[in-house]
Amino acid sequence: MAKLTEYKDMSPRASAVVEGIAQARGIDPADINNVWKALARHPAVMEQFAAEMKAAFAPGKLDPLTKELVYLAVSITNQCEYCIASHGAMARRKGMAEEMHAELMAVVLAAQKGNKIAMAYRVPVDEALEEE
Amino acid sequence: MAKLTEYKDMSPRASAVVEGIAQARGIDPADINNVWKALARHPAVMEQFAAEMKAAFAPGKLDPLTKELVYLAVSITNQCEYCIASHGAMARRKGMAEEMHAELMAVVLAAQKGNKIAMAYRVPVDEALEEE
Amino acid sequence: MAKLTEYKDMSPRASAVVEGIAQARGIDPADINNVWKALARHPAVMEQFAAEMKAAFAPGKLDPLTKELVYLAVSITNQCEYCIASHGAMARRKGMAEEMHAELMAVVLAAQKGNKIAMAYRVPVDEALEEE
Amino acid sequence: MAKLTEYKDMSPRASAVVEGIAQARGIDPADINNVWKALARHPAVMEQFAAEMKAAFAPGKLDPLTKELVYLAVSITNQCEYCIASHGAMARRKGMAEEMHAELMAVVLAAQKGNKIAMAYRVPVDEALEEE
Amino acid sequence: MAKLTEYKDMSPRASAVVEGIAQARGIDPADINNVWKALARHPAVMEQFAAEMKAAFAPGKLDPLTKELVYLAVSITNQCEYCIASHGAMARRKGMAEEMHAELMAVVLAAQKGNKIAMAYRVPVDEALEEE
Amino acid sequence: MAKLTEYKDMSPRASAVVEGIAQARGIDPADINNVWKALARHPAVMEQFAAEMKAAFAPGKLDPLTKELVYLAVSITNQCEYCIASHGAMARRKGMAEEMHAELMAVVLAAQKGNKIAMAYRVPVDEALEEE
Repeated sequence: MAKLTEYKDMSPRASAVVEGIAQARGIDPADINNVWKALARHPAVMEQFAAEMKAAFAPGKLDPLTKELVYLAVSITNQCEYCIASHGAMARRKGMAEEMHAELMAVVLAAQKGNKIAMAYRVPVDEALEEE
Repeated sequence: MAKLTEYKDMSPRASAVVEGIAQARGIDPADINNVWKALARHPAVMEQFAAEMKAAFAPGKLDPLTKELVYLAVSITNQCEYCIASHGAMARRKGMAEEMHAELMAVVLAAQKGNKIAMAYRVPVDEALEEE
Repeated sequence: MAKLTEYKDMSPRASAVVEGIAQARGIDPADINNVWKALARHPAVMEQFAAEMKAAFAPGKLDPLTKELVYLAVSITNQCEYCIASHGAMARRKGMAEEMHAELMAVVLAAQKGNKIAMAYRVPVDEALEEE
Repeated sequence: MAKLTEYKDMSPRASAVVEGIAQARGIDPADINNVWKALARHPAVMEQFAAEMKAAFAPGKLDPLTKELVYLAVSITNQCEYCIASHGAMARRKGMAEEMHAELMAVVLAAQKGNKIAMAYRVPVDEALEEE
Repeated sequence: MAKLTEYKDMSPRASAVVEGIAQARGIDPADINNVWKALARHPAVMEQFAAEMKAAFAPGKLDPLTKELVYLAVSITNQCEYCIASHGAMARRKGMAEEMHAELMAVVLAAQKGNKIAMAYRVPVDEALEEE
Repeated sequence: MAKLTEYKDMSPRASAVVEGIAQARGIDPADINNVWKALARHPAVMEQFAAEMKAAFAPGKLDPLTKELVYLAVSITNQCEYCIASHGAMARRKGMAEEMHAELMAVVLAAQKGNKIAMAYRVPVDEALEEE
């Protein structure tokens, strides 16, 4: 299991990252998720990941819920239990109703099957698709 | 490379699947994608996949573009070239503008990183998340 | 693409491995598969892999075809095109009829789905299974 | 961890799936595996998976034990702990003796190596294999 | 296949990234690798990746060759042909002799095996390791 | 969880493997890692893995720490918790300081991103790289 560093014990560089996230989410820095407590010992990695997450979830053409669904789909495909738990919760907070979750699962599982079929039968990309 | 069976050479069971898909998409059965030409020799697998795809993309709470983005995200994560090409094209037809594609990539890549970080540091799921 | 070393140009250590495989299969060493031509520059890796393959396919409780089906199932799951092509051919030579191939695909795809479902819903192992 | 719904608390759609499986296995529906208790909240996904599993394991050219070995091989490759535990138990019930399990492991591990070698050296598929 | 944008046709944001990389490597921007030509249509993703690569390969405690070997090991594990080709070349330029390449392969393959064994037998982490 | 066989209860074949490893590491065979206790029921797999590990970590052109970093990088990529814990500890014993660990993480994460980018954009290998 990870060595978790609580907010009060973090280095200045790590605390600064946590404070930025806590402020954006409107929570107390002491209540930050475990992933940040685990990353605290490697502040450069932590800063890079925090900046990348912020940019990925910045307002844009895709709405916040769609982005969470995409994040969750990747996490299921990669079989990351922590991320499935945390981004599943995030998706629910941003509006993923039970029925949407079921539909997401149906698409994710169909995609898994499509992926393995394409590889197993060694299907070449259609020329028509290449021309697009 | 796959052995591709053209529509005119397919068994009745395989043709029936192709006709169903072609009708739903408003295309000529002879123009069906390679994946179905490759699957034609295994009609039971083909029927099961066609039915699963139809159910996954049936009208529901998630809109058609969101479903394509999720399918594409899974295909990128699984590194399936055929599916990235075909569902990338599908997503563009359903409205994925270049800017949305770039945002999708940013979320997919951030998720990849989050997944590997959670595993590398062996981060335990927060109790608060379990209670939800 | 790999740098392929033909049998006639191999080092003595690499030729010896190829000769052993060729003799066991009853083929000419010059007709050895590409994987061995690619491995020829790293004879220690080559010897280790050849020995491991020989041991894995040595006569035992599982019949030769079952072993090929297992090898093929792993290769599909790992999405290795070369191995799907070569061990698909091997399986056909050892008796995999088209109908068996279709059944294999059905089980492989069902397993993929079961695997992703178990992870996505974070299913704990049943106590009854632990006691076995 | 998954939210598990016990049989007595399931919706009619979910109970019907569980009853079908329980009858086929000759067990009490209350003793159904955790995976079905976890899926109960998404009955459409559950029905689809139950139907796919039933079709994949229907009597055919491959015997029931071979199918379990293939399922187990995929689960090991995908690193799904739940499926390794449950289908390992299933395989033992269908006749996988310890020696067969050891042979399965040897083939699975050799295949992993073969897969990574083929990719690492970027081995092209032999023309002779394409012609088959 | 990717749509590749040549340096002379890139947007100002994309050209700036390419110029930075070309300068650091002492090459002509027109000779930049395909991966950057493919990324040119998504300049934000491109900038983020270029910055992350620069930081990862900045002088530090690990020497440049060790970093390339680690990058190559990840690429082999993920089965990314492009990255195996490009970072294999990079590693050779930074001093990876054939013998070192063979040793790298031996460790990568042993790790693959260790990983699958640990999962297949569901090995719990030793308490002594947790205490460290 | 694995069925662990303690050293004192192992078969002669399994004990012999454990004794060889214990002697090489200068530890008591009773203190052997869990992975070997789990493998004890499959002595042939155990012997093969022990021999492969010994060969992979034999003195050579790459120093022992570099080999551990490569092993750890593969284990993170494959998301194997046991191997991350055990080879993380091994790497620390062989000299991986916290700063080196952070640099390793930065390279591993950059490689993950590079791998997914190359696949997502379907980047063709540069001709210049093929000629090398």
